[in-house]
This record gives sequence, C-alpha cells and structure tokens, in this order.
Amino acid sequence: MNKLLVVGTVAFDAIETPFGKTDKILGGAATYISLAASQLGVKPAIVSVVGGDFPKEYLEMLENHTIDISGIEIIKSGKTFFWSGKYHNDMNTRDTLATELNVLADFNPKVPESYKNADVLMLGNLHPLVQLSVIEQMTEKPNLTVLDTMNFWMDNALEELKQVIAKVDVITINDEEARQLSGEYSLVTAAKKIMKMGPEYVVIKKGEHGALLFYDDQVFYAPALPLEEVFDPTGAGDTFAGGFAGYVASTGDYSYNSLKNAVIYGSSLASFCVEKFGTERMQQLNKAQVLQRLEQFKTLTQFDIQLS
Amino acid sequence: MNKLLVVGTVAFDAIETPFGKTDKILGGAATYISLAASQLGVKPAIVSVVGGDFPKEYLEMLENHTIDISGIEIIKSGKTFFWSGKYHNDMNTRDTLATELNVLADFNPKVPESYKNADVLMLGNLHPLVQLSVIEQMTEKPNLTVLDTMNFWMDNALEELKQVIAKVDVITINDEEARQLSGEYSLVTAAKKIMKMGPEYVVIKKGEHGALLFYDDQVFYAPALPLEEVFDPTGAGDTFAGGFAGYVASTGDYSYNSLKNAVIYGSSLASFCVEKFGTERMQQLNKAQVLQRLEQFKTLTQFDIQLS
Repeated sequence: MNKLLVVGTVAFDAIETPFGKTDKILGGAATYISLAASQLGVKPAIVSVVGGDFPKEYLEMLENHTIDISGIEIIKSGKTFFWSGKYHNDMNTRDTLATELNVLADFNPKVPESYKNADVLMLGNLHPLVQLSVIEQMTEKPNLTVLDTMNFWMDNALEELKQVIAKVDVITINDEEARQLSGEYSLVTAAKKIMKMGPEYVVIKKGEHGALLFYDDQVFYAPALPLEEVFDPTGAGDTFAGGFAGYVASTGDYSYNSLKNAVIYGSSLASFCVEKFGTERMQQLNKAQVLQRLEQFKTLTQFDIQLS
Repeated sequence: MNKLLVVGTVAFDAIETPFGKTDKILGGAATYISLAASQLGVKPAIVSVVGGDFPKEYLEMLENHTIDISGIEIIKSGKTFFWSGKYHNDMNTRDTLATELNVLADFNPKVPESYKNADVLMLGNLHPLVQLSVIEQMTEKPNLTVLDTMNFWMDNALEELKQVIAKVDVITINDEEARQLSGEYSLVTAAKKIMKMGPEYVVIKKGEHGALLFYDDQVFYAPALPLEEVFDPTGAGDTFAGGFAGYVASTGDYSYNSLKNAVIYGSSLASFCVEKFGTERMQQLNKAQVLQRLEQFKTLTQFDIQLS
C-alpha cells in the first residue's frame, strides 16, 4: 500500500454559521486531510502536535479511520491549537474570532521513521518553516509533494514560503491567493507564473465555482457540485486536498490524467464536508456514498457533442 | 431549415476597457445573438428597430452572415439606440456612462409573416412588454422559447416580466439576477423557485465561472474557458444565448441532453466574443475555429474515472 504522509494542524474549532454554532469541536487541516484520504483506501500518517487537553476519543476515531497517529506528538502540559470563526450569510467570507496557537507555537515536527519514504507528501496549511522541516526529514524524495498554503503566509513569511514552493510538485491555493502570489489578475497568467516558481501543477480552488488544474499549457476545470445548502464550509479546502492526495497515493499514478481524477475526487469529498458541522459528515462517510457522488459529478459535467 | 426568430436591440455601443476605448461601434443584443446563431448553420431573423443614422454597411454585414433583416424597422427621422460603458479593471463590473433609448423608446415590434411560425423564439434583453408582444404575434407556438432578461426589468417592470416568464421554456439570467428574482441565495433553490414561475429550464450564467443548466431535479455545469486575457466582455451574455438558441434550432432536438450541448456551444462562442472589441471577433469567426474551441471544452472538462 502506498504511503501518504500528512503534516498539518490537529485542533479545536468553534464555529458559528447562519445555521447554528458549536462549542469546541475537532478540527485542523491534518484531521480533514486524513479523513478524506482514508476514503481512498490509503493509510495516511499524521505529523502534528496537540496538548494534554486533546480527548483520547478523537485519537481513537482517527485510528478507526485507518489513520496512523504515531506522528502526533502529545504535549501533556500544553493546550491544543484553537481557532474560532463566524461565517457571514453568504458563507463565502468569515471573521476569525480567536486564534490561540498554544502548542503549535513551538511545533517541531518529527516524521515517523516508517514514513520517511512516503510515496506522497501532503503539506497542510502551516508555517512554511514547519513544512520545510518535514521535506528535509524525508530520506527519499516523495513521488509527489503537494503544498497547501494561504494568504496569511504570503503576508507574513513570503521568503520562507517561496523556499517551500520551489520544492513541491503541486500547489493548491484559492483564486485570490493565486493573484496575490503572482501579482497577476488572470488565473491563466497567474498559474504560469507560479509554475515558474517550482510546482509542475497548480490547483486553483474557487469554492462554489469549482477548481482549476493547470499543467504545462493545459487546463482542467472541475466544477463544484451546486448544493441546496452549505451548512459549514470549515475544512472544505483541506478535504479537497486530502481527496486529491489520497487519490494519487492510492493509484500511484502521477500523470496529468490521474491528477484530473484527483481533482474530481477532492471536489467530490469536499461536497460532503460542508453538509454538517466540522468533521461530522466525513466521519460517517462510506464508500457507496462516495461512488454515488462521483456519478453525480460525471452527470454534472459530461456531454456528448459529435464534432465533425 | 429550422427558423430562429430573434427579438432584441440593434444598437451603437461606445466601450472603454483597461485595454482601450472605441467610438460608436455596432452593438445590441439581437446583433450578438444573431451573429452567434449564424455559426450554427441556421438562418436567424431579427426583429428590431434602428434610426436613419444606422450605417447600411452594418445591415449588409448582417445579411452576409445569413441573417434575415426584413424585421429590422428603419425609422429615418430617428436615432439608433446608444449605450456607452466603462469596465473596471477586474472586467466583471462596469459603469454605464450613457443610455440613449432614441427609436427604442417607442419600439413596436413587427414579426415578419414568414417567421410567425418560427421553431425557436429567442427573446433578447428588452422591455418585457416588447417581448410579450412578439410572443403574441406568433401564429404557432414555437417549439422552444428562450428568454434573456436582466435586473433592470426586475427593478422596473417586475409584473410584466413575470407575465413573460410564465410563457417561456428557458430563461437565461446571471447568478445575482437569479437570487433577486427568487429571493433565494442558493442557486439550486433559486432555480427551483424560478421553474415554478414557468420555465422548464433555467440557465444561470456565472461569467468567468461558467453556466449552470437546471432541469427538473438535474443540473449540468458548463465551465467557462479560462482565458489569459478578456479584452471586452460586451455581448458575451448575448453571444451565449445566441449559441444556445442557434444550437437547438439547428438540431430541432429540445431534450435535456440537447440543451446541455447548447450550453457548451453558448459558452464556446462567448469565449470568442470577449477576445476583441464589440462584434469584431464574431464577424471573423469560422467553423474550423469553432470546432477547435469545442475540442478545448471537451479537454477542459472530460475525465475518466472508472467507478467500480
């Protein structure tokens, strides 16, 4: 079985949407990524850190989803990273109400020996220096390294981020971040510029408008499934990345055609994530539901024009 | 050959974009719709009105594109409808600098006898009462009536617009207009509400994010081709509608599957329209270029996941 290594946050989130609010619930990029990837029949391993306040049940739940948690360091005297946010009525924008780094402030990632030769490395959104440390701990260069990041690091750690970008095969960012990183408004031009910074593939996430995969002079457009109701967008981008990385890890096929399918898997899993608060929907998901949703994606986009 | 009747403006436009500005050039919804439809091998007829200042060369150009202009009334003593606008840097928003209705103010549409039994009726964006008058002049109910409209009529003539909506098979509007018309934020819910107002099909145009076709409980997503440069968005929506209506008129197939293809044709033709100022690109377009662009649309969206 191909190995997928995931570095990212494992966290507490408190979320408020127009549909309700939660107390502290399970969150974090690595959590969403791994839960999504576990749907693809791979065994993801998480590298992360939590505090002594992190419930054992959460760790057990991750293990029950065939996720290797040996790389999650538990700092008994510390507190788990906490984020709190409130979504606006359009669900596309949100205010951060609280960010408490806690044990994440001094996070020094340690890759388990057995995953230093992982086939796919998924760098979840984190400080670029943490991502860099994980890249450097790998004894073999992964077949595919995927980077997820955000505008916060472009504002606050651009030089470090550029070092990471130079070392990865795929970058996933949203449209505004692609524009910020490249200084170009056109996403086509932006993707071309970003490719010159390192990655062979650029994935631009457009939320409800789907995702674009750029490679060389080519482009693939995966739509998002139009949903009657988005309950909670938290983790959708991470779930997308997890489905993407999980798919390529499961197939061991790193071609452009395979990465197209990976984008569809990512979009498909993300469409589940937003149906309930936090990780709730992803915890309950089964293979039959995933296959049915993939069929919907086919129906959504496939047409049959005979060109003569 | 199936007949396509187009009602809409034939106008002068003066356009300013970040790439340059034009003097008065040829514009108008019916112009763009007909030029697009003429690419599909149908012979569209325009019902419209122009003033004595409208150049004979423009009419000849339309005729050279196999467009029937016998329904374009020329009021010698009047002036042609004029619109002027300036696009912002993002090209998604614009300011209207001038709107001179001129001969359009008292426009009383007259459908040519030979088109009162048209197979497809395309109602371009105009006052709903003008659209209604054309519907009522048809001696046979068209196989498909397609309505294009905009927020201006929702603000200023909502009751009349609702009368038109009740009589059409397809409505094409943008996402904000769908939300305004339905009072629903979710486009899925919005489309369902709008279907209850009359049309069996709802097409929601999302500009650079593509278009959605809703029918019954189904949805089809046609992406827009990601473009390096949008030179002038004027007429893109009309061109989309013209490609859509032209396709169904050319095939005589009014099924959901056929309308999916029609959305792809519309998107494909709209992607040409924005490459130059005004109708310039649409005037030069040939069949080989259209087929090549359709191939790009296939490449853009088609994937091959084996579901087992």
